[in-house]
Amino acid sequence: MSLSIAIVGIGNVGSHLAKKLNDSDDVSIRYIVSRDLNKAQQLIESLSIANCEPVEVSNIHDLSCDLIILSVPDRNIADVIKGLAFPEHVVIVHTSGSQPIDLLSNLESYGVLYPFQTFTKAQEVDFESVPVFVEGNTEKVTEIIETAAKAISPKVKRVSSEDRKKVHLAAVFACNFTNHLYAIAENILSDAKLDLSDIEHLMQETVTKAVNISAKNAQTGPAIRGDQNILDQHLSILKDDEDKYQVYKLLSKQIASLNKK
Amino acid sequence: MSLSIAIVGIGNVGSHLAKKLNDSDDVSIRYIVSRDLNKAQQLIESLSIANCEPVEVSNIHDLSCDLIILSVPDRNIADVIKGLAFPEHVVIVHTSGSQPIDLLSNLESYGVLYPFQTFTKAQEVDFESVPVFVEGNTEKVTEIIETAAKAISPKVKRVSSEDRKKVHLAAVFACNFTNHLYAIAENILSDAKLDLSDIEHLMQETVTKAVNISAKNAQTGPAIRGDQNILDQHLSILKDDEDKYQVYKLLSKQIASLNKK
Repeated sequence: MSLSIAIVGIGNVGSHLAKKLNDSDDVSIRYIVSRDLNKAQQLIESLSIANCEPVEVSNIHDLSCDLIILSVPDRNIADVIKGLAFPEHVVIVHTSGSQPIDLLSNLESYGVLYPFQTFTKAQEVDFESVPVFVEGNTEKVTEIIETAAKAISPKVKRVSSEDRKKVHLAAVFACNFTNHLYAIAENILSDAKLDLSDIEHLMQETVTKAVNISAKNAQTGPAIRGDQNILDQHLSILKDDEDKYQVYKLLSKQIASLNKK
Repeated sequence: MSLSIAIVGIGNVGSHLAKKLNDSDDVSIRYIVSRDLNKAQQLIESLSIANCEPVEVSNIHDLSCDLIILSVPDRNIADVIKGLAFPEHVVIVHTSGSQPIDLLSNLESYGVLYPFQTFTKAQEVDFESVPVFVEGNTEKVTEIIETAAKAISPKVKRVSSEDRKKVHLAAVFACNFTNHLYAIAENILSDAKLDLSDIEHLMQETVTKAVNISAKNAQTGPAIRGDQNILDQHLSILKDDEDKYQVYKLLSKQIASLNKK
């Protein structure tokens, strides 16, 4: 018997999830819930979801299904929970990466189903490469959420709210901060009338190597080699740019100290 | 009439270049020069290079061609130049990214042909995505080198020795330093029993976005948003790890200051 699901909210996340879940035999979407019945109906028709009803948000307590997925904006989750009466014995999950599971703790069965997707808006999501992080308030609840998650992506992981914070922190280092380094590189390259596309193959290779052989083992460059001659040359090129100079010095020092360990 | 070329040295770079140049109608490889005649002969046969002679290094002064490509290790270039008599009126180039053009300045016509390739050893090189940086001691010489470079890759750029240093410096930021950030992320993720492959899609997306819309415009995350709540949360997670704490603080400060500009 397949897992019956209601999706609440038909924004970016909700409609992508509906599309993906509708392709699976292991789950069936029974309800699309929205403030706007017409839009819910439109989504059902455009995705050709069989045996699925459009439902007004205020009628959510009448739903009969196994799992309700709240794909509403992070800031609205608390209000939705407070403002609505949910049916009993149904698992309720939110889909936010930044919100803890406890946000739902006044419910009976609850959890998180977080597709860890890129932040690019409004384009087709390739869920196959997107890990889905799940968390439930009991083992049985977690298993139900896992069933839905496996219909979205093969990469399903149990991740606690505490660990989701660490994933976010890791992404700040590996994405936001690397982007800042790309911006510095971009600036240096423009001095030489070049741009990032001239070193894109190296940037891609760096990602691939780090994933394949571990970033710790993949480190190259003058700092790890202890090539003081090149380090001094580079610092002298940067001597009039305080920001770049500081980044160069700090990161080179840390990389060099790895060499000595 | 196609450009006639001699390749000196049949290591990693030399044999990859021979293979690629042999596919082009605009150049013809006339000589493969090596200390080991048998190996030169083997390369000619394995690549089926037509009308090409194997030549012993010491006979290099007898060559009759337009361009001699020295694909010897960086540290050996100076010795090769000092130790050998080159034929007159032939353009001599080295293929090193780190060495200046002046290394060859006691010759008549000289320059640099530097395929800016990844540092991964011994695997097939996709030259189509690899920029080739060229430099010559005169305009005419530069044009000859460009002809050979265009037979290697569509991405040919004139880059001075001074600017090649900047490219190297930019690659340190965009590859060596980003790898250090990946190592930090890897370490944080392992705390949550996850690894870099769980955020690989975000890392790849970060590269692609930076190249496509410029890293300066692509910056995201709590620092550029000025989200002090998240910044404080992250710093508190990192408070017992001095290295990560320092990197977080420095890079966030610089990114935040961009926001204010």
